[in-house]
Amino acid sequence: MNIRKRVRIGVIGGAYPSPEFRKKAYEVGRLIAEKKAVIVCGGLSGVMEAAAKGNKEAGGLSIGILPGNSPNDANPYIDIPIATGFGYSRNSLVVMNSDVLIAIDGRYGTLSEIAYGFVQEKKIIGIDTWEIDGIIKVDSPEQAVDLALKQYFPLVR
Amino acid sequence: MNIRKRVRIGVIGGAYPSPEFRKKAYEVGRLIAEKKAVIVCGGLSGVMEAAAKGNKEAGGLSIGILPGNSPNDANPYIDIPIATGFGYSRNSLVVMNSDVLIAIDGRYGTLSEIAYGFVQEKKIIGIDTWEIDGIIKVDSPEQAVDLALKQYFPLVR
Amino acid sequence: MNIRKRVRIGVIGGAYPSPEFRKKAYEVGRLIAEKKAVIVCGGLSGVMEAAAKGNKEAGGLSIGILPGNSPNDANPYIDIPIATGFGYSRNSLVVMNSDVLIAIDGRYGTLSEIAYGFVQEKKIIGIDTWEIDGIIKVDSPEQAVDLALKQYFPLVR
Amino acid sequence: MNIRKRVRIGVIGGAYPSPEFRKKAYEVGRLIAEKKAVIVCGGLSGVMEAAAKGNKEAGGLSIGILPGNSPNDANPYIDIPIATGFGYSRNSLVVMNSDVLIAIDGRYGTLSEIAYGFVQEKKIIGIDTWEIDGIIKVDSPEQAVDLALKQYFPLVR
Repeated sequence: MNIRKRVRIGVIGGAYPSPEFRKKAYEVGRLIAEKKAVIVCGGLSGVMEAAAKGNKEAGGLSIGILPGNSPNDANPYIDIPIATGFGYSRNSLVVMNSDVLIAIDGRYGTLSEIAYGFVQEKKIIGIDTWEIDGIIKVDSPEQAVDLALKQYFPLVR
Repeated sequence: MNIRKRVRIGVIGGAYPSPEFRKKAYEVGRLIAEKKAVIVCGGLSGVMEAAAKGNKEAGGLSIGILPGNSPNDANPYIDIPIATGFGYSRNSLVVMNSDVLIAIDGRYGTLSEIAYGFVQEKKIIGIDTWEIDGIIKVDSPEQAVDLALKQYFPLVR
Repeated sequence: MNIRKRVRIGVIGGAYPSPEFRKKAYEVGRLIAEKKAVIVCGGLSGVMEAAAKGNKEAGGLSIGILPGNSPNDANPYIDIPIATGFGYSRNSLVVMNSDVLIAIDGRYGTLSEIAYGFVQEKKIIGIDTWEIDGIIKVDSPEQAVDLALKQYFPLVR
Repeated sequence: MNIRKRVRIGVIGGAYPSPEFRKKAYEVGRLIAEKKAVIVCGGLSGVMEAAAKGNKEAGGLSIGILPGNSPNDANPYIDIPIATGFGYSRNSLVVMNSDVLIAIDGRYGTLSEIAYGFVQEKKIIGIDTWEIDGIIKVDSPEQAVDLALKQYFPLVR
């Protein structure tokens, strides 16, 4: 399957999640791989790493858009690390390169990505994340990935 | 007075505010000029324009950090327009160049700036803006500017 | 083979090359695919498109780092389009994400990438491109790709 | 005089110039202040610092567009420091915010700014800088500033 045409699901969330959220992020990553979608994330630790790990172990593909200057900064499960050198300003690029977003937990960096999600008119599915009107709240990784794929209105690429 | 040493107050808020919020933004801008602080904002319309106008008419100085490629895009009250060509990604730069933030009303662009404010550990004073824990809520422009100047712990520049 | 570990060759050059340079870019792209390296480029037309096309037709993988806001802007041969919304400022990101550069022809955008190549201490192989001391000049696509792979001192990723 | 309407002259050049070039940069800065134009530069050391110093001592105004995250990184002669957090990618912003450029000496960072100058169709005056066709070569700071002001075709702002 042409990787260009796969749906890209942005997975956003905290760098220091609890074990429970880490497990959910892992599951989200695994399910994204099973559905032949691609993960886009910030490429570092926590939710980003757990989702990329689940994805990798299920044979998926992940893109990590990094704050630093070197592709080598990415966590070991990222397949396509993209260095930006823009620090936290790269958060808007994570959103820009996603067709739909799944937010898991998360603090202020995640809030900035949720805000950019609304600015860029992307659908946002939330698992125990910020209480912002318009986020579609779900409980399980299965619901999140299913809804993400349904919410995304596919553009021809 | 050396303009390099003046406190910089970021004024963030919506591009399409009600007349009431526009008036408050104007007042905030005017008071910032009276206190010899500098406004930093996104340089465009709405709250940004009203604050810059109030500032200008009271003899102040304003910096507008613009999304587009040309300094000419700034509203007419901006003294120092800075083009970035980065679109909404420039929101983090508005925060980075402010010592403290005043948020007035606002939608998702403002929410991204509030999020970056917390990421960058800036104090945020809010007038009828997003309900996010940690924002210092006030009612009047006077309270907002007074608190902004008190909250800001001046670094030697 | 783990795509994370493949050498990334940045291919830079003009958006409006002559048929001769377009052919050389196509060959460079094809050879990069044969050598199991990855192309990084600006994702648009001309040299970028010809190289991505040659790469695609030989079963390779290409990353296109785009100036605009949408991954859909990439030419049809790009596998992994990355939108930045940064306009020409994205040129430094093309370099940052390459282990080594091959420059073919090109005008001022290419010159900015060559300059960033030197700033970031990347080796630069040139086919009929700018006359700047330090560029390793070659004639053929074969020489360019061979040298690129030799010049690149592999870091563990 | 309205500072918004002043011509902005970008002064670009090396971080480690010889005493001779430092002196020329100082003179360029001084003359820009005398002519009531504004300096735009990268805000750090070398040519940037010497030009800002000359400018400051003659009562001028300078804008420094910085690679780092803090306005405090600017050299002490910069009046309006703008932090970007973009590292060398900020070079295109120095150009974008200048009406015309004066290049003095300089290495690869300066070359990237010259390249962006041509991309953005700005006139470039050069004092002992890169040999690139289209740069207007002059010997003295006086000639450089005079020509810069003549070459700049003023837009209404």
